[in-house]
Amino acid sequence: MADPILQKIAEHLVETEDVVILPHINADGDALGAALALGLALTDMGKQVDILLEEEVPSNLDFLPGQELIKTNPREQYSTAVNIDNGDISRLGKRESYFWNAKTRLSIDHHTTNRVKAHYSYVNTKASATGEIVYDLLLNYFKGNLNKDISLCIYTAIVTDTGGFRYTNTTPETLMICADLMRHEIDFPYVIKKVFDMISYTKLYLMKKTINSLILLEDGKLAISYLTYGDIQNYDVKNDDFEGLVNIGRNLEGVEVSVFLREDSEGNFRGNLRSNNYVDVSEIAEIFNGGGHKRAAGFNSSDTREELIKKLIAVIVPKIRREA
Amino acid sequence: MADPILQKIAEHLVETEDVVILPHINADGDALGAALALGLALTDMGKQVDILLEEEVPSNLDFLPGQELIKTNPREQYSTAVNIDNGDISRLGKRESYFWNAKTRLSIDHHTTNRVKAHYSYVNTKASATGEIVYDLLLNYFKGNLNKDISLCIYTAIVTDTGGFRYTNTTPETLMICADLMRHEIDFPYVIKKVFDMISYTKLYLMKKTINSLILLEDGKLAISYLTYGDIQNYDVKNDDFEGLVNIGRNLEGVEVSVFLREDSEGNFRGNLRSNNYVDVSEIAEIFNGGGHKRAAGFNSSDTREELIKKLIAVIVPKIRREA
Repeated sequence: MADPILQKIAEHLVETEDVVILPHINADGDALGAALALGLALTDMGKQVDILLEEEVPSNLDFLPGQELIKTNPREQYSTAVNIDNGDISRLGKRESYFWNAKTRLSIDHHTTNRVKAHYSYVNTKASATGEIVYDLLLNYFKGNLNKDISLCIYTAIVTDTGGFRYTNTTPETLMICADLMRHEIDFPYVIKKVFDMISYTKLYLMKKTINSLILLEDGKLAISYLTYGDIQNYDVKNDDFEGLVNIGRNLEGVEVSVFLREDSEGNFRGNLRSNNYVDVSEIAEIFNGGGHKRAAGFNSSDTREELIKKLIAVIVPKIRREA
Repeated sequence: MADPILQKIAEHLVETEDVVILPHINADGDALGAALALGLALTDMGKQVDILLEEEVPSNLDFLPGQELIKTNPREQYSTAVNIDNGDISRLGKRESYFWNAKTRLSIDHHTTNRVKAHYSYVNTKASATGEIVYDLLLNYFKGNLNKDISLCIYTAIVTDTGGFRYTNTTPETLMICADLMRHEIDFPYVIKKVFDMISYTKLYLMKKTINSLILLEDGKLAISYLTYGDIQNYDVKNDDFEGLVNIGRNLEGVEVSVFLREDSEGNFRGNLRSNNYVDVSEIAEIFNGGGHKRAAGFNSSDTREELIKKLIAVIVPKIRREA
């Protein structure tokens, strides 16, 4: 069953001669993998393809094929622009004009929050990754063949956005697609190693500091860990580097609530909250003027660390006891 | 295409009235998942099923359904015994006699090293997990239907032995099977969390000590970390707890060779070696009278830690330089 909008996008791409592909800023494995897969397929069809990025390709994605399509000397105008894996055109950053200046503007995305206006904008929120949509486009609309390079790009896109098939967005369809991609003899263990396992010095240092700070309360049901401004100020720390640190506490046997605090600037804390089974951490975050979901929430605070931890314990302990 | 031996096994199981299922000692997710899946299916077919284990169910697998089939008061003799996910009958430990005393002895396994003698012994080394073989048996030989509980057991078996679809034993067939299992609405993110993410206090402590000991040499290409006997003697440390500690160094950006040493008993070190791209660590292990593969090897040594590290550096550095 062809989708009429994706059909129009396919028809237009078959007709056009030159295309600029625009993934969101801070392009991750899905944005970049989907852009490269589409770029390689269109190049095979004889199109002139330029992929424009806001930043350099991150080192954990430097293995992706098709990077010769990533240009730093764009044309003034393109016949066709494809916004990809991006729900908000302002997230194209400095490249926004290439989208608006194109004669035909197309958009392919899977985010529920998508609000892109284009000549044809296709949003499939059931797709775990935009890579899945590109797979669908190539196979069912272009009636093209996958090759090893394109398969590697799409596989990378999908493993990135599904956390290696562990998030709830993973569907039977996701695994069927990846089974097909694997038939092209891609080195999938290498992809997973690059995308998930490799860590930077900074990250290892932050992990070490976080583990060393970790305390357990309430018979091991509450884990609290933190990084002070002193811990991080001399390091070139990116927001990504903090990702997952709250899970060190959450993944520890017996822990119900994990709190991770980081002092982003002197006296200003960002708090992350996670729970495993029954405590609604969004309620806790709200008390500190933050918000989130039942199992994952966050807040900001300018209390001192000692004060903040004392307040958090006072709020969290009764919830752990009441609901245990 | 039915396999004649698996066909015989299926026919026998359809005929028999009571079955004992015997996974290997230290049953992991594949051994236990495959045993429970087969046990549940045979129970549905009206058979009397006992599963016998050498140990308690480990806490990271305590969610598996069908545990009512695990018995601590076995019969004296069974009509049929099924050795499962086990390539060597001596690895049944104290339960070996239940295999030999059974009137019919069957065996289902995927290990290349399998050397089991039974009335019918099926070994499929292309299966990523014994769980895959049980899936094949249930669907294609018993012509049975999967249900949610059986699907959860087989999914757990497969994710365990494929490291969450990241090891090279993962095949397109593996993903096709898991796509089918997911259709039974199993809580697969929970399975992956329990099997891979949960860590014990002991493990976190060992990680902390390992990270704190880590040194980098040769411009960050060689990582060395260790645990002394003093670090571990007061903890109830199991062999499993050391798993993955060598990867802390290996996963660090720029590292080619990672060495992890642990002093199992006073003065006796076990060394693990890993490489990422070009150094053949089996050659290094051989110099220390050990062995292994190009990217993963090990050895034992009774040198002092300082001496051993000095010797290792002398051997490894030229290899890193020569092949860089």
